[in-house]
Amino acid sequence: MKNFADKLLEAIDEKKNLGIVGLDPRIEQIPEHIKEEAKEKYGNNFKSVASAFMRFNEEIIKNVKDIVPAVKPQSAFYEPYGSEGIKALEYTIDFARKNGLIVILDAKRNDIGSTSKAYADSYLGEVKKFNGETETSFSVDAITVNPYLGSDGIIPFLEVCKEFGKGIFILDKTSNPSSGEFQDKRFENGNKLSEEVAIKINEWGKELIGERGYSSIGAVVGVTYPEDAQKLRELMPVAIFLAPGYGTQGGKGEDIPNFLNKDCYGVVVSSSRGIIFAYLKDPYKNEFTPEEFGKAARQAAINMREDILNALEKYNKLPDNW
Amino acid sequence: MKNFADKLLEAIDEKKNLGIVGLDPRIEQIPEHIKEEAKEKYGNNFKSVASAFMRFNEEIIKNVKDIVPAVKPQSAFYEPYGSEGIKALEYTIDFARKNGLIVILDAKRNDIGSTSKAYADSYLGEVKKFNGETETSFSVDAITVNPYLGSDGIIPFLEVCKEFGKGIFILDKTSNPSSGEFQDKRFENGNKLSEEVAIKINEWGKELIGERGYSSIGAVVGVTYPEDAQKLRELMPVAIFLAPGYGTQGGKGEDIPNFLNKDCYGVVVSSSRGIIFAYLKDPYKNEFTPEEFGKAARQAAINMREDILNALEKYNKLPDNW
Repeated sequence: MKNFADKLLEAIDEKKNLGIVGLDPRIEQIPEHIKEEAKEKYGNNFKSVASAFMRFNEEIIKNVKDIVPAVKPQSAFYEPYGSEGIKALEYTIDFARKNGLIVILDAKRNDIGSTSKAYADSYLGEVKKFNGETETSFSVDAITVNPYLGSDGIIPFLEVCKEFGKGIFILDKTSNPSSGEFQDKRFENGNKLSEEVAIKINEWGKELIGERGYSSIGAVVGVTYPEDAQKLRELMPVAIFLAPGYGTQGGKGEDIPNFLNKDCYGVVVSSSRGIIFAYLKDPYKNEFTPEEFGKAARQAAINMREDILNALEKYNKLPDNW
Repeated sequence: MKNFADKLLEAIDEKKNLGIVGLDPRIEQIPEHIKEEAKEKYGNNFKSVASAFMRFNEEIIKNVKDIVPAVKPQSAFYEPYGSEGIKALEYTIDFARKNGLIVILDAKRNDIGSTSKAYADSYLGEVKKFNGETETSFSVDAITVNPYLGSDGIIPFLEVCKEFGKGIFILDKTSNPSSGEFQDKRFENGNKLSEEVAIKINEWGKELIGERGYSSIGAVVGVTYPEDAQKLRELMPVAIFLAPGYGTQGGKGEDIPNFLNKDCYGVVVSSSRGIIFAYLKDPYKNEFTPEEFGKAARQAAINMREDILNALEKYNKLPDNW
């Protein structure tokens, strides 16, 4: 079974792109024509919101599938609509995978022991029905996980990742302004909490290293903290970083070289609102109508790729075969 | 609008019980007659597992509703079954609330900014549909939250708690063996991570203090760490502790007095498998048939209450009016 890290690196090479797209639908920013269609069909209820989300995501996926290696749906935007929202999430995951995209679910799950195992089974493995029969449930390629509970929370994920060729990205240094409140505090040994977590992530990942030397156990390191990224890169040489915070949160292409190993790999950079709702923003809103939101997203994804590629070139970090 | 902490304390007084029941259905341990019934009705699929969970939880809730102040469904056991599992969770929440129980959803959610707000809206507040109309989604009384991302992750929850009279329990010192890997590490100022988190929890809670002096912002402190509980109690005088780990994980009544303030309040103690699957365990399995699993759970809940009450009495920690 192919290792998740190898699959992700292959997709990165194929698209020659470190940028990925966050699928974070928000009802206020969905174009009117999609909302109208859904409302006519189902009325004003959770089912109709879920149907608008599916329609919206389909269009985004069709428009970026040849540009980006992966998409990252954010569970928090589907859960508000209960079981209807989860149907939209399930549909989005399937649609993205059928369109050849790697799917990283941003759900930041965390628990311990058999409860943690239940999460791992849900999203990465197989779920038990009656008489010991099993079935896959969500089936994403990787999920984000919170490390606060220690190894008891992580080990059940490692086992499922091994068995099914899946991956996880463990929160380390998050992209938000207050991430330092706990993550930057120094322990008695001089290490920050994020550095201690990094040491553990590298350790946890050692048994899941693929052919290209990277582990299926990655780390979330915000693109908004490029200085931290450099130190964390040293502590986690085998981890692929998932770097959120590009665009709306302030991260930019220039920040990316800090996240890379000498081989010019080691990160995927995620942007959500800046891509999927590009049609509402300059310069795209002058070029594209709301009906063309998919094309606007495509153009924004292309621009993000260019921005990152320019930085890689400038700092001599472009992979050999690109 | 009534403060969540006040509501919880009122329910504790009414039942004279600090014990609550975790609703963690696992397909292997659901009694055969319930599985058979579901299989006949729907076949062997996620819908039929979900229907078995609903039937099982109904019976548990009916049998413990006059014994315990609250139930705590664990999201990780419903999510494996996708949208069908979420329907079972929604049904369970509704059924418990209609039966007069407080519902604390154990989901350990965490994110930042508007994403964190989306989680808060989903479980504690109201969700937006089209044209700015809103509707409640899950509507639990409180949810567990992970603090790793700092204030950006917590503040959106505080605002929703204020508006809707709801609460959160923030992970602090968790019940599992490896919780110390990060939570027990000492910072340069001599405080453990769990102590720094505790200081923040008390601060975050200050604006949500109810008539009885407790905040709607509580803390998760495992009943398996009674020594830590004493120190954390001092750091968080206004927080109600949610203490998992009673029973199967090794926590016992004797450990509880450490979790209390001088007024003899300040904790709810949670047990899951030890109660809901009591029918599979000594001494209950000799007294009750699998068909009587609800009665076995009731007896286990009564025994847990007794065990805690005995410890409170022994250490002079019984509330005055009990």
